[in-house]
Amino acid sequence: MTPAHTLAFRGIWPAMLTPLTASLDIDHDAFARHALALLDAGCGGVTAFGTTGEGPSFSVAERMAAVEALVARGVPAQRLMVSTSCAAVTDTVALTKHAVGLGVHGCLVLPPFFFKGVSDQGIVDAYRWLIDRVADPRLRLYLYHIPQVAGVGLSHGVIRSLLAQYPDTIAGIKDSGCDQVHSVGLAQAFMPPITVYVGFEPDLPALGRLGSTGAISGLANFAPRLVHRLVTQPDGPDAGRDLARVKALLTVFDGFSLMPALKGVMAEREGHAGWLRVRPPLVALSATEQAELRQRLQAFGLDASRD
Amino acid sequence: MTPAHTLAFRGIWPAMLTPLTASLDIDHDAFARHALALLDAGCGGVTAFGTTGEGPSFSVAERMAAVEALVARGVPAQRLMVSTSCAAVTDTVALTKHAVGLGVHGCLVLPPFFFKGVSDQGIVDAYRWLIDRVADPRLRLYLYHIPQVAGVGLSHGVIRSLLAQYPDTIAGIKDSGCDQVHSVGLAQAFMPPITVYVGFEPDLPALGRLGSTGAISGLANFAPRLVHRLVTQPDGPDAGRDLARVKALLTVFDGFSLMPALKGVMAEREGHAGWLRVRPPLVALSATEQAELRQRLQAFGLDASRD
Repeated sequence: MTPAHTLAFRGIWPAMLTPLTASLDIDHDAFARHALALLDAGCGGVTAFGTTGEGPSFSVAERMAAVEALVARGVPAQRLMVSTSCAAVTDTVALTKHAVGLGVHGCLVLPPFFFKGVSDQGIVDAYRWLIDRVADPRLRLYLYHIPQVAGVGLSHGVIRSLLAQYPDTIAGIKDSGCDQVHSVGLAQAFMPPITVYVGFEPDLPALGRLGSTGAISGLANFAPRLVHRLVTQPDGPDAGRDLARVKALLTVFDGFSLMPALKGVMAEREGHAGWLRVRPPLVALSATEQAELRQRLQAFGLDASRD
Repeated sequence: MTPAHTLAFRGIWPAMLTPLTASLDIDHDAFARHALALLDAGCGGVTAFGTTGEGPSFSVAERMAAVEALVARGVPAQRLMVSTSCAAVTDTVALTKHAVGLGVHGCLVLPPFFFKGVSDQGIVDAYRWLIDRVADPRLRLYLYHIPQVAGVGLSHGVIRSLLAQYPDTIAGIKDSGCDQVHSVGLAQAFMPPITVYVGFEPDLPALGRLGSTGAISGLANFAPRLVHRLVTQPDGPDAGRDLARVKALLTVFDGFSLMPALKGVMAEREGHAGWLRVRPPLVALSATEQAELRQRLQAFGLDASRD
């Protein structure tokens, strides 16, 4: 077997927002257009159904159908990452088997997120359940740490245990905890052999200097080039300007619910109000909020050729 | 239409533990035996797939099959409450439609529990989605508040809004927040018209005095009579002894993970090790822990005729 980490992704694989129809179902056509546009813009691949993509707000059947629709509309499966995270391990197995069967690059998986305060042993047991029941050497797994949303995080002990048991499966860690000290600690402990991908964009240069080679990023939905430079050229000629620019971009979202506001940017960019829609329990921006977002965006001045 | 609260349940409807087979699938036969034994012991009904029952650890298909198996094995559907809580509103709709179609008494539903810090409006939207899409006048809904596990709770504003919009559907609130001040506040605000059922057993007498008529209780898996007296006879002749006894029963679980330890009690009572099993991310008691639990239980002395 080839250790999974040697085949880990490089470059930017945006955490895609999920466009919805008027009935709040997934708009397969708009979703595929978005994925293809990001690949055209130079992204290494795209990620479906992470937190930014409201993944756990959709059923297993809805997620399977949407991933199939992406592939059917021309997104190369090997440039697709799917977050197959569910509260029930049986659901995670079903989604992961399906994605692996389609030939995706990898799956991004949270620990089960309903029970809180669970032991490291219980989290390891859940990943073991997944890997052993998927039982497919093609499975490439990225561990997903976002405790402020999931309510359950991944300790060094959990990661160490899984790496020791499944070196041919564990390819990397996505750390979206938004805590640079924690991200650097992960990088120092585990990179190499595996890659740590940081979710909070202002931390990308620090992780890039430590050897991180890519990102699964929400801002990359509309600023993929900027995000790419941050991690791949942390000391490049534009590094200072880029870091200031991504920090300024984040202030565009101050005071808004993040996912609805990221979708608001897409609605402005695409001129398509369908991007504003979210699944409950998220709430779409109001018209007033969208107008405020529009003003801030104009002041920021997104530049498609550089951002 | 008849306001739902006039048909709300009374008495004890235990939050059933879910017995598992060696492959950690639901043991339908043992589950039905447990439900029937609780009904024989005088419980008004039984509750499947709440937090104590590890509900969110099972897929929609697993939960549907198990509820069907309970009914097929003789549990009267109208004495069955099903927690149909999921992270995805579409899954909650599917489970709730299924349960209502079987003729269950009611459904116990958490707010969507993946995203944290969501607005009251988003939570109301999620329940509206559920009620409007189930679109069945037989639906009787119990709102479920357990923020320390779900990570998302229900404010007075959410409850008030849903009661105003759906008086024919909202039957009650289960408050498992384990905070008596909060439970009393709910009772003062909403009871009548609807019933507040408290999950933390030592608070049952206080809620009984305010008019609460029942409980969905974890301890009622093996002490249904004691739990019943606490809420229905809060000032009865044995009230002081009963309250002291339930507090002592809770100390049996000190230092253990609660659900595995509750299952440990069932294993001792039934002499069936299958009760020890849990789904990841929970971890079954170790042999040492089970021995310690056994000693504490013997010291406590469960009394089948009174507890």
